[in-house]
Amino acid sequence: MRQSQLFTKTKKESPADEVSLNAELLIRAGFINKEMAGVYSYLPLGLRVIKKIENIIREEMNAIGGIEMKTSIIQSKEVWEKSGRWSDDVVDNWFKTKLKNGTEVGLSFTNEEAYSNILKQYISSYKDLPIYPYDFKDIFRNETRSKSGILRGREFYWKALYSFSKNAEEHNVFYEKSKEAYKNIFNKVGIGHLTYLTFASGGTFSKFSHEFQTITSAGEDTIYVDPNNGIAVNKEVYNDEVLESLGLKKEDMVENKAIEVGNIFSLGTKFSTPFDLKYKDEKGEDNLVVMGCYGIGLGRLMGTIVETLSDDKGIIWPESIAPFKVHLLSLGDDENVKNRAEELYNSLTAKGIEVLFDDRTDISAGEKFADSDLIGVPYRVVVSKRSLADGGFEIKKRVESNGKIITIDELVNLLEAKR
Amino acid sequence: MRQSQLFTKTKKESPADEVSLNAELLIRAGFINKEMAGVYSYLPLGLRVIKKIENIIREEMNAIGGIEMKTSIIQSKEVWEKSGRWSDDVVDNWFKTKLKNGTEVGLSFTNEEAYSNILKQYISSYKDLPIYPYDFKDIFRNETRSKSGILRGREFYWKALYSFSKNAEEHNVFYEKSKEAYKNIFNKVGIGHLTYLTFASGGTFSKFSHEFQTITSAGEDTIYVDPNNGIAVNKEVYNDEVLESLGLKKEDMVENKAIEVGNIFSLGTKFSTPFDLKYKDEKGEDNLVVMGCYGIGLGRLMGTIVETLSDDKGIIWPESIAPFKVHLLSLGDDENVKNRAEELYNSLTAKGIEVLFDDRTDISAGEKFADSDLIGVPYRVVVSKRSLADGGFEIKKRVESNGKIITIDELVNLLEAKR
Repeated sequence: MRQSQLFTKTKKESPADEVSLNAELLIRAGFINKEMAGVYSYLPLGLRVIKKIENIIREEMNAIGGIEMKTSIIQSKEVWEKSGRWSDDVVDNWFKTKLKNGTEVGLSFTNEEAYSNILKQYISSYKDLPIYPYDFKDIFRNETRSKSGILRGREFYWKALYSFSKNAEEHNVFYEKSKEAYKNIFNKVGIGHLTYLTFASGGTFSKFSHEFQTITSAGEDTIYVDPNNGIAVNKEVYNDEVLESLGLKKEDMVENKAIEVGNIFSLGTKFSTPFDLKYKDEKGEDNLVVMGCYGIGLGRLMGTIVETLSDDKGIIWPESIAPFKVHLLSLGDDENVKNRAEELYNSLTAKGIEVLFDDRTDISAGEKFADSDLIGVPYRVVVSKRSLADGGFEIKKRVESNGKIITIDELVNLLEAKR
Repeated sequence: MRQSQLFTKTKKESPADEVSLNAELLIRAGFINKEMAGVYSYLPLGLRVIKKIENIIREEMNAIGGIEMKTSIIQSKEVWEKSGRWSDDVVDNWFKTKLKNGTEVGLSFTNEEAYSNILKQYISSYKDLPIYPYDFKDIFRNETRSKSGILRGREFYWKALYSFSKNAEEHNVFYEKSKEAYKNIFNKVGIGHLTYLTFASGGTFSKFSHEFQTITSAGEDTIYVDPNNGIAVNKEVYNDEVLESLGLKKEDMVENKAIEVGNIFSLGTKFSTPFDLKYKDEKGEDNLVVMGCYGIGLGRLMGTIVETLSDDKGIIWPESIAPFKVHLLSLGDDENVKNRAEELYNSLTAKGIEVLFDDRTDISAGEKFADSDLIGVPYRVVVSKRSLADGGFEIKKRVESNGKIITIDELVNLLEAKR
């Protein structure tokens, strides 16, 4: 894409009420727009990142048998009364509104009830199980305060998968698979090395739930990490008994601030009971379905990546989710420079390499460099009179201090291999 | 996908309160679930259709310079007060709710204000224009009645593009391009032959808006079509003066019921005035931006296709948006039949052909045929003892009465060529 056609521009300042690093950088670089506290729009650069994260998650969910659908945001009172979660005394962050006829409706803050209600129609026999439906969906939570940028939104974009299994054994097999899928996701988006499987509080049906916590000073959670085996314990369940049950030693544990970027939870029959979600087994006997839930907030994940992988100049996107692979900067008014830049842009895009081409003519070289560092595309390629005199194009990774001159053929080969 | 892993099943009946053909067929075939009047969830089959429609629209929008983003659903009062559309006296189908601190917020019912407010930050010079941002987005309209299935939802999935141009001339060039893009979309999704560019009421800044109306008895609109030149006039502006201004003759016009599947509208400076959306031209003078809007409801389009392209047995999907290309039916318990069906399924999926494989063992041949007709996949391929005895597999298009026997190689070649 030509930067002259990208309508966003970088900004020196973010809104005065924006106190989080992630939103500040993302607003200044033109990835998101703040509509109000906890509500952000994704601008073209931001949506490109979200779509790449979405595709990585989709691939991993499909690989473990997930089947995608799209549930409604508007939710009916009757369905949520079955589980007892309609009441504002039980759930304090509902957004509710009314139909013209006065009927109260809610906006999805999670999806257990919606799925249980739909699946109830389709589950009757053991042959119908297991099933693993999931949604990418905008979720609404009426948070009292919302100061963490896209880490904790009043409206946010979410993936949630629910598992419906015949029994605890079948559930456990999938639950373990899901851990691997989640690890793959965090590795692929570039924060696997900072992200720990973390034991957290469970519920009636499981001693623990499992969170995936990414270490960063911006984290709202405190976790204790055992660096030797790469697992962690959330402060909420951190005590001698838990450590012992997990075979961990207090002296090995390191305290860290962290952000919960994903969580998986065994639900047992908590929802299948009120929704009477039963199946007939081989003997013709009725059994309750065993459920689990598996969530990831895409905006939160994107914000966490910005919090952990930025420097004082701007964002540093991992290649897998960067809005573009290459930021091509054409410097100066020289016709030959312009032509060579155009030629390179055409060569790279013809090969399917995603290039943001800074073809703007009224911007100084210094401003182009600063914009490029702020936006954070992995490879910066500069074409200037000097680079041509030196034999070609200057390529520099966002994380490197110095570039090097290479020819157009070398450049195309290098970037193609990295595609 | 194996049908044994698709959790939905066909139903004999749709909900008692469902009076529209589109929703009745889509519910019975397992494409959608009715949450309440005007609110539907998309089940796996339905989402596959929506995604294909979405990709066709995206391709056409990008081809005319569209740039995709994702605006928030929650909208702030201050922004909508600028245009005067916050008031319930002006807009009678808002869904509104409140933040914890009592602040009123709305749910997007359209996007002019959100876009104008965002773009205001980025437009200052003639060099910034034109720009063509668009969203795919869930939209909320608090309809008093909602009885048309997915043709008119309280919540619906929508594409809207807004054009921001320097002047009327530049606007008109894009407006004409958008007509072609819309025609391409309706042709590609399979209802081009039933869809007419229709002159409808304009506004302060244009004599007409343009609707794309698809002829069907389920339509809520009345249009008059001139079959000779393929254009139509909406009843709301149908009079002698209009006919004369368009060079149409009353005696040529044929009255039809139709559904509005898309609409394009010149907005002039209606929104750029309240949002003070101005740019400096080459002379340094301030000018108001000229806007246009271009909408398509994806659910409505899907519903219209079902209304127009179904028969008494079920849905007939056009190949371009069908959830699968092939419905493969394995009949009976014979091991050789099962093996040949598996072999064919693997061959086709390995070639990237999308196959729904009815591998269920507890369903009769008659039920499989009925399900297949109801779901409406374009090609039905049957493997049975009889088909194998006859020399291979029976292939039949959904629209044909009789199939023919072909070999696996012929089948793979035929379907691959059609991919």
